[in-house]
Amino acid sequence: MTIEQFQQLIERVYYEKDSGRGLSATFMWFTEEVGELASALLRGDPEQAGEEFGDVLAWLCTLASIAGIDLEQVAVDKYAQGCPKCHHVPCQCPEPRSS
Amino acid sequence: MTIEQFQQLIERVYYEKDSGRGLSATFMWFTEEVGELASALLRGDPEQAGEEFGDVLAWLCTLASIAGIDLEQVAVDKYAQGCPKCHHVPCQCPEPRSS
Repeated sequence: MTIEQFQQLIERVYYEKDSGRGLSATFMWFTEEVGELASALLRGDPEQAGEEFGDVLAWLCTLASIAGIDLEQVAVDKYAQGCPKCHHVPCQCPEPRSS
Repeated sequence: MTIEQFQQLIERVYYEKDSGRGLSATFMWFTEEVGELASALLRGDPEQAGEEFGDVLAWLCTLASIAGIDLEQVAVDKYAQGCPKCHHVPCQCPEPRSS
């Protein structure tokens, strides 16, 4: 499934509810899922971690939709040519990788 | 681009560096990008927000790779049939949506 198709799927399921709640409150739900992902990774539970990775991606998509962002387009635009900072594959930026 | 292809792209660019850093330290970088996304959204800067959405997705992919998770598979498995809780499209769960 493309990133765009997944974002569109999440829009069909959640856009009305999530946009009605608003960007800020939806961001709180997103970060709650980030915390659940941390918890699953700390427990070393691969099944739960998989669920939480899916949830974080879904909330990231819904946030992008509320913000009017095409997640596939921005991700591909930034990374399709390799590291956007050093332009190498693999990245050859000195560690820590600047953000 | 599929979610799987994007995860594979990010692996080619960053897996060696990010897996060498380890899951915990990479999670810190991921959350730093989440903070940058919040900042861009608070400023209402769509161009910067687009960049940060791309970065958060890239870091989520690299975390999934380090954890041995196929991000597309877990996301599609969970959401392809609609809301995984109420099984409706659109979601009809009572608000707040439980996590």
